[in-house]
Amino acid sequence: MSLRDLTPEQLKDLAADVRSHYQELKAKNLNLDLTRGKPSSEQLDFAQSLLSLPGEDDYLAADGTDCRNYGNLKGITDIRSLWAELLGVPVELVYAQDSSSLNIMFDLISWSFLFGNNDSTRPWKDEEKVRWICPVPGYDRHFTITETLGVEMVTVPMTKDGPDMEAVRELALDPQVKGMWCVPVFGNPTGITFSEQVCRELASMETGAEDFRIVWDNAYAVHTLTDTFPPIYNVIRMAEEAGNPNRFWCMSSTSKITFAGAGVAFFASSPENLAWYSSLAGVRGIGPNKINQLAHARYFGSADGVRAVMLKHAGSLAPKFERVLQILDDRLGEYEFATWTKPEGGYFISLDVLDGTAARTVQLAKDAGIALTGAGSSFPLHHDPHDRNIRLAPSLPPEEEIATAMDGVATCALLAAVEKLGA
Amino acid sequence: MSLRDLTPEQLKDLAADVRSHYQELKAKNLNLDLTRGKPSSEQLDFAQSLLSLPGEDDYLAADGTDCRNYGNLKGITDIRSLWAELLGVPVELVYAQDSSSLNIMFDLISWSFLFGNNDSTRPWKDEEKVRWICPVPGYDRHFTITETLGVEMVTVPMTKDGPDMEAVRELALDPQVKGMWCVPVFGNPTGITFSEQVCRELASMETGAEDFRIVWDNAYAVHTLTDTFPPIYNVIRMAEEAGNPNRFWCMSSTSKITFAGAGVAFFASSPENLAWYSSLAGVRGIGPNKINQLAHARYFGSADGVRAVMLKHAGSLAPKFERVLQILDDRLGEYEFATWTKPEGGYFISLDVLDGTAARTVQLAKDAGIALTGAGSSFPLHHDPHDRNIRLAPSLPPEEEIATAMDGVATCALLAAVEKLGA
Repeated sequence: MSLRDLTPEQLKDLAADVRSHYQELKAKNLNLDLTRGKPSSEQLDFAQSLLSLPGEDDYLAADGTDCRNYGNLKGITDIRSLWAELLGVPVELVYAQDSSSLNIMFDLISWSFLFGNNDSTRPWKDEEKVRWICPVPGYDRHFTITETLGVEMVTVPMTKDGPDMEAVRELALDPQVKGMWCVPVFGNPTGITFSEQVCRELASMETGAEDFRIVWDNAYAVHTLTDTFPPIYNVIRMAEEAGNPNRFWCMSSTSKITFAGAGVAFFASSPENLAWYSSLAGVRGIGPNKINQLAHARYFGSADGVRAVMLKHAGSLAPKFERVLQILDDRLGEYEFATWTKPEGGYFISLDVLDGTAARTVQLAKDAGIALTGAGSSFPLHHDPHDRNIRLAPSLPPEEEIATAMDGVATCALLAAVEKLGA
Repeated sequence: MSLRDLTPEQLKDLAADVRSHYQELKAKNLNLDLTRGKPSSEQLDFAQSLLSLPGEDDYLAADGTDCRNYGNLKGITDIRSLWAELLGVPVELVYAQDSSSLNIMFDLISWSFLFGNNDSTRPWKDEEKVRWICPVPGYDRHFTITETLGVEMVTVPMTKDGPDMEAVRELALDPQVKGMWCVPVFGNPTGITFSEQVCRELASMETGAEDFRIVWDNAYAVHTLTDTFPPIYNVIRMAEEAGNPNRFWCMSSTSKITFAGAGVAFFASSPENLAWYSSLAGVRGIGPNKINQLAHARYFGSADGVRAVMLKHAGSLAPKFERVLQILDDRLGEYEFATWTKPEGGYFISLDVLDGTAARTVQLAKDAGIALTGAGSSFPLHHDPHDRNIRLAPSLPPEEEIATAMDGVATCALLAAVEKLGA
C-alpha cells in the first residue's frame, strides 16, 4: 500500500516497525561500501593474462614500430583500429592515449580555457562567463572538472531517451554556453542510453558559440548487463553531415574492461579537433605508453575479443544488479514512494527516494556502517534540488554483502520517509 | 694549426681539400640520424624481462593494494621508496605518476597559469607578464612549454658548475620572474652537473615572486657514462633550511632506464606543493597506472638494482660517446675553431662550431643525408644568438653509423668555417 495512502495509525505502526528494523541493523555493526563504481576482484581476474603481456620479445607494433622507444602521439594502430571498429569510427579519427579518458577531458577543457580551442575567437579564460549544459543526474567527476574551472553549470533533466532536448536546444543558443557533458550509453548513474534521434539532434542543433563542444564520454559503450550490445551511433559523422564537424570530443577507455586505472583511453574526434589536441599534447609530452597499448591489443586480439570479455563482465555483474533490484522491489515496492532505474548496462542504479530524504537516508546508512555515495553527488556542486537522488554502485562487493547492504539501505530509505511524513 | 692562423694560401688549400671531402660525403648517399636522445635497441633490450612483468598473479603492492583497481594518486610505495632512496628524499615527498615527467612539468606550469600555485596571490594568466630564467644551451622541450604559454624567456649562460649565478640572482629579484628551468645533473645538452654550491644558492637566493618555482628536471640523475654516480643534492631540504620550502618542483623518470615513453615518472616536492598538485591532479584523474609501477618495482628490486641497470647503459653508451669525441678531436682539434663538451653522463654532446656557422653546418649535413637537431634548438625560440651550438645525440645509431655520421659532421663544420672565413 502506498505510503501516502496509509492512515495515521497505519503509518505509526509502520514507523515503529521500521525503527525496530533499523536498531537491529545498527546492532550488526556492518562495514559495507557501495560508494564507487569499481570493478570487483572477480572481474579484474578476467584480465589476469594481461599482467604478463605483451611478453618478452614482443614489442613491435604491426607497422614495425618499436613500442619500447619514444614517439607516436596518436598511439599504435594495433589498438586504435580495434577501438575504431567498436565505436564505428574511421581509425584515423581515433587516438589511443594513456590510461584515463578523464585526463583527456580535463586537458581539452582546461586547454580551451588557456588557449581557446580550434574554433575559438579567444581563450575561454577571457570570456566574461562560461556556461555548460549538465544533464542530471550525471557523473560527479565531470561536474568537478567544470566546477574547478569556474564554469557555471546549468542542469537539464534526463528523459528515458537522453537529455531533455527542448531544454538543451534553448540553452545551446546562448553564446556563453560552451559545452555539454554527456554519457550517451548506459549513463552514470541512470543507465539511460541516448536514442538515435537525440544523438542526431545534438549533432545538428544550432549553438550560439562557434567553439561549442559536447564531451561524449562513452565510458560504458560496450558495458552490457545482458547478452546484447547497444547500438553505437557515429556522432562524429552525424555532426559532419549537419555542418558541425567539430562538435564532439568522444571518449572511451578500457578502464572497466581490463584493469581500472591501468588501461588504455581513447579520444575520437574530427581531424581539426585532433590536430588542435595534438598541437598541445605534443608540447605536454612525447606520446602515450605504447607497451601498455600493445599488451592490450594482444590481450583482446580483435573487437570481438573485447565483446567476449564484456560478456564475462555481464555474467559477473548482472546477478548483483538483479539482487539489488529484487531487494528494492521487495522492500520498497509496495510503498510507492521511491523509484529506481533498471539499467541494461553500465555500473550504477539511480535510486530516487522520497523528496527531501536522500541526505537523511545516506546519513542513516552511514550510522549503520553502510557507506553510500554522498547525497547530491550526481548533481553539479552536489546540489540535488529535490534531495532525493542516491547513486548505488553494486559492482565491487560480493553479492551477499550487496544484499545485506541493500536491505539496510531500504530500511534507511523507509525510515527517512516515515520521519519526513511526521511519524 | 688554428684556422685563424692559416695564411690565405693555406686556407685556400684547406678549403679545396674540404670541398672535395664534402663531395665524397654526398656521393655516399647516407641516411643517418643524430637528432634525438633516444635509447638504442641494445639499451632497450636490457629491460626485456619487463615486457612480461609484473607477471600473472602478481598485482598486490607491499601494502596490500590491488594495483589493478582504481585509486592512489601518489603512486605505490613499492616504487616511490626506491626512487626516494636514489634521490635522497623522504618517501612522503616522492610521488610516482605515469610515464612522462614532461607531462607533470607542463601540468604544473599550465595550472599555475590557470589557477595560480599554492604561493600565488593570483593566477599567472592574470599577471601582466610572466618571465622565466632559461640557462642556455638547454632542453628544447622545456623551452617549448614556456613558449606555448606565452612566457618571456630570459637566458643565462652555463658555466662548468651550472648556470651563471650572478645573472640568475639578479633576474630572480624581478617579481615577474616566476620560475626557472634546470637540468641539474648531466644537463641536456651540455652534460654539466650543478655544483653543491650552485644548488645551495638556488635554494637560498632571494626572489621577487613569492610563487617562484625552479623546475628541477633530474632526467639524468643516475645516467653515468663511467663507473661512478654523481652526488645528488637534496635541494628540497636545502630550500626548506633556507626558508624557501616550496621552491623546487623536482622531476625524475625511468624513461631512459627501462623503456622510453613507457616508464614511470616521479615528482618530488614539499608537502605544500604536493598537496596543491594533488588538489588538481585529483580532479584531472583518479591516479596513475599502478600495474606499470609494480612491474618496474619488480624489475629493479631495489635502488641498487637501478644502479646496476645504469652501469649496463654506460657500457653501451660510453664507447659511442668516446668515438664521437675521438672523431671531433682527430678532425677538428688542430684547427681550434670548435669546442665541445666531454660529458661523464647524460645523452648529449654540445658542439660549438665557428660563430655564425651552426645553421650552415646543419644544412650541409642534411644535404649529405645526415640529420642533426636543428641549429638553435637548445635555445628559447630556437634563437642561438651566436649561431654556433649544435646538439649531438649519439645514443640511438650503432657505433659504426655514428662514426660515419660524425666524420661527415666534422667535414660540414669545417666547410662552413672555411666558407665563413671567405675561402
